Amino acid sequence: YCGYTDSLSDNCCNWFLGHWLGHVWMSENGALPLRGKVLTVDTMNANVKKVDYAVRGPIVQRAVQIEKELKEGVKKPFEEVIKANIGDAHAMGQRPITFFRQVIALCTYPQLLDDNKFPEDAKNRARRILQSCGGNSIGAYTTSQGIDCVRHDVASYIQRRDGGIPSDPDNIYLTTGASDGIVTILKLLTAGEGRTRTGVMISIPQYPLYSASIAELGAVQINYYLNEEKCWSLDISELQRSLHAAREHCNPRVLCIINPGNPTGQVQSRQCIEDVIRFAAKENLFLMADEVYQDNVYAEGCEFHSFKKVLFEMGPEYSSKVELASFHSTSKCYMGECGFRGGYMEVINMDPEVKAQLTKLVSVRLCPPAPGQALMDLVVNSPQPGEPSYQTFMKERTAVLSALAEKAKLTEEILNTVPGISCNPVQGAMYSFPRITLPERAINEAKAKGQAPDMFYCMKLLEESGICLVPGSGFGQREGTYHFRMTILPPTDKLKIMLNKLKEFHQKFTQQYS
Amino acid sequence: YCGYTDSLSDNCCNWFLGHWLGHVWMSENGALPLRGKVLTVDTMNANVKKVDYAVRGPIVQRAVQIEKELKEGVKKPFEEVIKANIGDAHAMGQRPITFFRQVIALCTYPQLLDDNKFPEDAKNRARRILQSCGGNSIGAYTTSQGIDCVRHDVASYIQRRDGGIPSDPDNIYLTTGASDGIVTILKLLTAGEGRTRTGVMISIPQYPLYSASIAELGAVQINYYLNEEKCWSLDISELQRSLHAAREHCNPRVLCIINPGNPTGQVQSRQCIEDVIRFAAKENLFLMADEVYQDNVYAEGCEFHSFKKVLFEMGPEYSSKVELASFHSTSKCYMGECGFRGGYMEVINMDPEVKAQLTKLVSVRLCPPAPGQALMDLVVNSPQPGEPSYQTFMKERTAVLSALAEKAKLTEEILNTVPGISCNPVQGAMYSFPRITLPERAINEAKAKGQAPDMFYCMKLLEESGICLVPGSGFGQREGTYHFRMTILPPTDKLKIMLNKLKEFHQKFTQQYS
Repeated sequence: YCGYTDSLSDNCCNWFLGHWLGHVWMSENGALPLRGKVLTVDTMNANVKKVDYAVRGPIVQRAVQIEKELKEGVKKPFEEVIKANIGDAHAMGQRPITFFRQVIALCTYPQLLDDNKFPEDAKNRARRILQSCGGNSIGAYTTSQGIDCVRHDVASYIQRRDGGIPSDPDNIYLTTGASDGIVTILKLLTAGEGRTRTGVMISIPQYPLYSASIAELGAVQINYYLNEEKCWSLDISELQRSLHAAREHCNPRVLCIINPGNPTGQVQSRQCIEDVIRFAAKENLFLMADEVYQDNVYAEGCEFHSFKKVLFEMGPEYSSKVELASFHSTSKCYMGECGFRGGYMEVINMDPEVKAQLTKLVSVRLCPPAPGQALMDLVVNSPQPGEPSYQTFMKERTAVLSALAEKAKLTEEILNTVPGISCNPVQGAMYSFPRITLPERAINEAKAKGQAPDMFYCMKLLEESGICLVPGSGFGQREGTYHFRMTILPPTDKLKIMLNKLKEFHQKFTQQYS
Repeated sequence: YCGYTDSLSDNCCNWFLGHWLGHVWMSENGALPLRGKVLTVDTMNANVKKVDYAVRGPIVQRAVQIEKELKEGVKKPFEEVIKANIGDAHAMGQRPITFFRQVIALCTYPQLLDDNKFPEDAKNRARRILQSCGGNSIGAYTTSQGIDCVRHDVASYIQRRDGGIPSDPDNIYLTTGASDGIVTILKLLTAGEGRTRTGVMISIPQYPLYSASIAELGAVQINYYLNEEKCWSLDISELQRSLHAAREHCNPRVLCIINPGNPTGQVQSRQCIEDVIRFAAKENLFLMADEVYQDNVYAEGCEFHSFKKVLFEMGPEYSSKVELASFHSTSKCYMGECGFRGGYMEVINMDPEVKAQLTKLVSVRLCPPAPGQALMDLVVNSPQPGEPSYQTFMKERTAVLSALAEKAKLTEEILNTVPGISCNPVQGAMYSFPRITLPERAINEAKAKGQAPDMFYCMKLLEESGICLVPGSGFGQREGTYHFRMTILPPTDKLKIMLNKLKEFHQKFTQQYS
């Protein structure tokens, strides 16, 4: 007798005999057993439970809460929350590139094509994009791989960027931000069970999209550690160590690289990239190159080298063989258009049958957002000398990139004046990832609370100063070391205030727990 | 001796001893074993291989190819390809709603806020959306669940639509089109192995996003058949049959409903929805209601009833208990803004811990595209009486919906004049799904070619008349019956031409194979 409803009685026995696997609990008055929810944490997808994404984790949730409290008039030792947790340039006050927004506005509301206020080059770009859209509307679905002319423009851009090495538009897939492309390629690569399960090599520290996607797909995460002492460089011997260890328990098939580095801000040397490619070739690994910060290189002597270019310069032995997917996005660099979710990937040496599967897979979601595709087009097909918008565009672009270069330097300098904080040069990308020395007592108190020590530190920092950072534990770090990731995006004056507040906090914190 | 390269020799033995699981094949001259690709169809994700998405399948690929051939001057028995394969309104010539595009242009390029050409209500909407964005830019990431004010507007819309039944903005998640939300909920629900694996009940015929996602997630597809004889209605006895059969081999946990129906165009009665809810409650199933065609109801006596509304009208026994996720989108109805990838879902009675997991999961992809979110806002917060844009908006909206109603009728009428084609009334949505009688000889010829008979039919139709439809086999149908899905979206005059061409073709085809 299950006592739930009459209509149940006929299949009630079956139900208890194992066909139903959800929860059963007692009702509040304890009288009758009631069916619980179909979907509970105990009966949900176990892989999803393992997913972690620190960049928007508990510390950010608390930051949002504090912002609400401030609005409601709750007194705090600060007046605003500074969110340096995420590479979100516009949210930090960066202005959009005028030309880009003009073209998107024209595409959205083509009546503006008759408006004299818009420059001719913006109108031409808009007309060309609209001609490539069904019914000349960005409200139509695009082909699943992305708008034809955009894919052609991406290929031309890559070819120019890589000194003439050809790029085939058929190898370009437009994506919903770079994240979408990365997850899609990881999905294709995930196979096997137990010891044959696909292993994915990721740097530690890493951008947590990787660990999150690996967890969700049920692949095996393989950590290789960047060398903090050598400015977060990548040592092949460490790759080798990590790979050998992993082969004991899974099937390593993929090597992921983020260059310029997130969260670590390093820019890889050409030599290092060559070594990595040689390693991937030798060990039969599929290469994934996350190159979304390709314009964000600040340090003297550093330069961005694409994996594609280096691969092809290594000659046909490599360029005809090594499988590579590289990723770019509209969200970073000088444009910072995160909200549009634009991106592309280029696949090199992908098996044609697999490529057909990839095309089929992306078709299920119909297409990436058309405005993001249009924006991606503008990034790879920006105003050229002689065009009316060229000078404004270059001025805006340069202003953003030189401010970032200045802030990268400033961040490193100020942080390194603080005893107990040590910060590698921010050679590129948008983040510093300084190491912090935490007093033993703070570590113990954190552990007693079940918190990672750097989470404990960052939470206290947020409560006392309103600064929102992400603890190093959210990205991974060598056992016993502690860090945080901080974006260099706040406007210079705010960044200075923030860094000085941080300095003060660190000194106070160290004193308090010593 | 593996003979591949010298650098390999040291770990070559290990390699053959089972650490490496990819392909090994002989080179063309048969001399040396060479390593193949890391990623091949044999070593890729097996679930992805099972994915099928007919709406953009081989027939559409052939259509695109034919379009290219026409452009290159290849002679065909027709001058253009008419794509009636996908619900892509703008591609079929439907014009965007002026107000919507004005607001999105204003959000994109806020300098236009000073322009007198834009009405005040459009400016107000744009200002309000921008104020909810980081740095007042739609280029900033939004919160992962979606922009606050948009979620509030969605909740108010639902509450109005459902006669005052409350909707909580915390239960609203903005999505990248409805597809994204549907896959996310299915992902949460997929668990177990073998006989305990999650089973998902879907209608046959179905929209292939469902079968594709189920395959990709490795869940179990459970078919329940709609009753073609009764205008594609849903019989509870069939649900019961299908569920009982499925319980022998999996753990059925989810029941998916599409209303108004895709591809079948039926609109469910209030009574039927009540019965479905009662069934879900009794059998402990999570309900997923795909309601993206909620404004697309044409037939007299038919009305859209949301699952949410009916659930709450059934009283607390149901409304406090049955778990429901319902989905909406900017892509269909009168706006047809597919390219923006806007959408939302509302979750009802979801376990709070699972909701936290859902919020975490969506945060990994950062946020849905902001322009799509803004557009979703306009759909749920359209111009009101007294606002300057109200009349134009209503005129445009009504024009689209009444043209669709007319075309729904026209389609049914013309198709039913063809001997061997029988078409249920297109009560709603955007498609007809007529049954076609195929001569035995055609069926045999198709089978000999390894093709589904209706694929054979649609391919021939495409080659001979340029009309691109999707065969019924892509959606599922009762064994031995054949159908196709055709959108009713082409402009009336083109639709008439298309229907008459179809008629001619069907008669010729029948004759040819009789």
